[in-house]
Amino acid sequence: MTAPTADFALQLNLSQRVNVGDMLTRSAARDPHKTALVEGARRISYQDFNQWVNRTAHGLLALGYRQGDALALMSGNCMEFLVTYYACAKIGVVCTPLNLFWRQGELSYVLSHAQVRGVVAQQRWLAELAQVLGDLPAIRDLIVIEGPAPADVALPQRVQVQSLAQLGEGRAQADPEVLVQDRAPLSYLYTSGTTSAPKGVVGSHLAIYLETLGVIIDTELKAKDKVVAMMPMFHTAQLNAFCTPTIASNATLYILEAFDPVLLLDLIEAEQISMFFGLPMMFRALLEEQEHKPRKVSSLRRTVYAMAPMPDDDLRRLMDVFDCELSLMFGQTEMSPASTCFRPEHQLSHPGAIGTAGINVQIGIMDEAGNLLPREQPGEIVYRSPHLLTEYLHDEKATREAFRHGWFHSGDVGHFGADGMLWFEDRHKDVIKSGGENVASIEVEKALYAVEPKLAEVVVVGLPHERWGEAVTAVVTVRPGETLDPEEVLHKVKQKLSPFKCPKAVVVVDAMPKTATGKIQKNQVRKDFAAYFDK
Amino acid sequence: MTAPTADFALQLNLSQRVNVGDMLTRSAARDPHKTALVEGARRISYQDFNQWVNRTAHGLLALGYRQGDALALMSGNCMEFLVTYYACAKIGVVCTPLNLFWRQGELSYVLSHAQVRGVVAQQRWLAELAQVLGDLPAIRDLIVIEGPAPADVALPQRVQVQSLAQLGEGRAQADPEVLVQDRAPLSYLYTSGTTSAPKGVVGSHLAIYLETLGVIIDTELKAKDKVVAMMPMFHTAQLNAFCTPTIASNATLYILEAFDPVLLLDLIEAEQISMFFGLPMMFRALLEEQEHKPRKVSSLRRTVYAMAPMPDDDLRRLMDVFDCELSLMFGQTEMSPASTCFRPEHQLSHPGAIGTAGINVQIGIMDEAGNLLPREQPGEIVYRSPHLLTEYLHDEKATREAFRHGWFHSGDVGHFGADGMLWFEDRHKDVIKSGGENVASIEVEKALYAVEPKLAEVVVVGLPHERWGEAVTAVVTVRPGETLDPEEVLHKVKQKLSPFKCPKAVVVVDAMPKTATGKIQKNQVRKDFAAYFDK
Repeated sequence: MTAPTADFALQLNLSQRVNVGDMLTRSAARDPHKTALVEGARRISYQDFNQWVNRTAHGLLALGYRQGDALALMSGNCMEFLVTYYACAKIGVVCTPLNLFWRQGELSYVLSHAQVRGVVAQQRWLAELAQVLGDLPAIRDLIVIEGPAPADVALPQRVQVQSLAQLGEGRAQADPEVLVQDRAPLSYLYTSGTTSAPKGVVGSHLAIYLETLGVIIDTELKAKDKVVAMMPMFHTAQLNAFCTPTIASNATLYILEAFDPVLLLDLIEAEQISMFFGLPMMFRALLEEQEHKPRKVSSLRRTVYAMAPMPDDDLRRLMDVFDCELSLMFGQTEMSPASTCFRPEHQLSHPGAIGTAGINVQIGIMDEAGNLLPREQPGEIVYRSPHLLTEYLHDEKATREAFRHGWFHSGDVGHFGADGMLWFEDRHKDVIKSGGENVASIEVEKALYAVEPKLAEVVVVGLPHERWGEAVTAVVTVRPGETLDPEEVLHKVKQKLSPFKCPKAVVVVDAMPKTATGKIQKNQVRKDFAAYFDK
Repeated sequence: MTAPTADFALQLNLSQRVNVGDMLTRSAARDPHKTALVEGARRISYQDFNQWVNRTAHGLLALGYRQGDALALMSGNCMEFLVTYYACAKIGVVCTPLNLFWRQGELSYVLSHAQVRGVVAQQRWLAELAQVLGDLPAIRDLIVIEGPAPADVALPQRVQVQSLAQLGEGRAQADPEVLVQDRAPLSYLYTSGTTSAPKGVVGSHLAIYLETLGVIIDTELKAKDKVVAMMPMFHTAQLNAFCTPTIASNATLYILEAFDPVLLLDLIEAEQISMFFGLPMMFRALLEEQEHKPRKVSSLRRTVYAMAPMPDDDLRRLMDVFDCELSLMFGQTEMSPASTCFRPEHQLSHPGAIGTAGINVQIGIMDEAGNLLPREQPGEIVYRSPHLLTEYLHDEKATREAFRHGWFHSGDVGHFGADGMLWFEDRHKDVIKSGGENVASIEVEKALYAVEPKLAEVVVVGLPHERWGEAVTAVVTVRPGETLDPEEVLHKVKQKLSPFKCPKAVVVVDAMPKTATGKIQKNQVRKDFAAYFDK
């Protein structure tokens, strides 16, 4: 066909495009009166949610936002988070959720690096934002979720402040008709960089759309499901592995601000929740609370735990107490994020495995030279998938490095079992090189947990050491009310591990440094104890 | 990012692309030893199937085929059909399946219009092909599925003949690494044009990939499923609504050359088949055969009937005899093809409806002026979906006409019920304009079936008429052993329908003209009887 006129190009785009915002439009068209979102006493239908999104999108267009402009979003879990995300999607604006654990340095860096021109924020973050906006002349709009900014927050003159309600007020509630390309960015999600500056993961509409469909297939999500969102929405796992699939499926999403075992169990009982997703430690807290005060939880169909395998004892207790399917989802921000699913039928039969590739994912194990390795050999986990990131924003070097040899390098070390099951061994950077041998820190951690029930948390890192190069070192916390003799632990673990894998020291600490999603920051531990073996 | 070098562009493409061929690659990587295809006594694993496809793709590359080149495929259902389809996919060659009911005029037209440079064909079609190749100088390769061409087929000197086995002989079995864009064409599928020349529906990788995922979600297809392919693979319904979803799901596809109720029921019992898809009339034949000689069919999980609703009496018998879920899939070649699914839970509760929109589909009802109509008002069914055709090949006029007002015009007339269920009324061109009133031919057909059990098939068309403009006319066949009095039928139907909807004549014929997939060709009936009311 000859190049279409601008007018016809728009008509074709509206008819054929891949746009995450259209997933909401379609659910609203299919079942307008179905409840889309529930947040405390607030309930909203698909039609009302979609019209709210549309009014907001028209408001952004009126402010001059166009495809490719970045809008930051600083908010805890609430309806307005999703209204902003879908409004950006429909008009091609790039949503840039901010991690609520970031402080001024990181906020400044990301707002500047992403070339953000406006921020949507809850009131409670305004004081923090006010501290950094002075040095960010590109930022001209502040849209406050609950209302105008309180008078005691000093903002630069140039920043125009309005509420989210004002932004959409009087705007059209019909779908905005804007040309957005399949691979246009929907979001910049910054990965927490502990050794370097955060990297901006550019997620396209196409990538997040396909990942959303892949999760629906893996979790068998259906319109009748009732799904809880309690993990932070600024994190891709909650946002794109559970929120977008729920909306695309015409199901109902229950929004909690954070994980609380009492609130969650009460909600499951009151609303007949069928699905939620959390970290392994949350499941342990749920077990304790449910055993303490049992609720009716028979509505649960599937629960998903993320990122790390769960010990079989916990799995057995969960199956017993909650009597529902369990699956593990594994991935990373760059995969939008789901890469593997450890399916309900595999639980307990492959302890510690992370499953098999999702429908849109091909997984290889690669050596340093770029050769794909056969099953049972360990190497770096590499991916091919249409839901990979487009690139790292403004970082061509990192992009080229990550995509070398035609595969995305995950930074994870693992291997396939003979039966095709994938086993995660360690983060590439967490493999300890001790006395010429490679030691997977996770293997040592597991051995420590197994021999010493008094341990609450264990992190094994390689610390600089004159003789070993890196010395295998365990940094641990102890369960409440217990005391620990490090020498005794060392003695016990020597019965389980080859000598070169045994820790050279066990260091007891009061608390571990953690990320927003509750993961222990190994890099920080490594930094904190870098001089431990210095003489 | 600055424009990547050609080398890095290829690496990014291989890592991130949307390619239907990659769906096979991924299934082969995930579970290489799983049985992919079964055809009679032949069984092939995912690994072997994928390597066969790769060798074939490398063979095509060696012959000089490049992205955008068209390769025709003239074959009944067999493994080699799918080998050719996936080989084309992996290297961006455009597969052009030929309808086996076409004769020389249509074959010549399509081979020329699609600018085909080679044909893959079964031996039995060579004589037919030989008749047209003389006038198609662009065609330089003939690849014979079962072996070299027999000596008695006279082919032009320029045509190089080899077998499919020779094409792949000695070629690499690794995946070819070729840059193919998301929206590059995977296939040209020609719709049967009865009033005009066939139109070439350009289906992109992205469209067919997304439709494949949509069908997996609608049918809940899983790796453990065993799916029968018995409808012609040259038709999009078999190819993209059942073959590609089965392959992408790592399930097993059983290939039958055609529908045969005895063979199909024997296969279901012998292989524990869980899913198949057919036309309503096939289900009736299956019921009769199963009642005549019952097989064990408890492995059936879901059967899908396509294109037309099934009478409730048939549905009840099917549910009773086969005891499995039933769903109706509705669509058209331009939708790749699935647009709606009439789900298991809706069967019997909405007789005659065609369901609700698939996950990737938005449906509107539009009037002639381009206005979207509210529920319960009839108009043309229009679609927005990323699995719409890219365009009609070399037919910008038809493309612009089809996509006017930013929606694809299906040519079907229908309406939404108050509850959001979609009802198909008629093909737009089959709506009869009689004496100033619009009459849906399907409504009259239903009324005739209801009042006269002796009728086997009924087609209602509008024929040119001096007084009425178009006269509502019923062309019918009669059940074996029965005779019919047209006047009596007219009398009965007058009790059911408004006078302006009643047929002016009932014409009994011995047989109806039909398409490859068994649908009655209304256009042909209209042509055959165009002069019926001439005086």
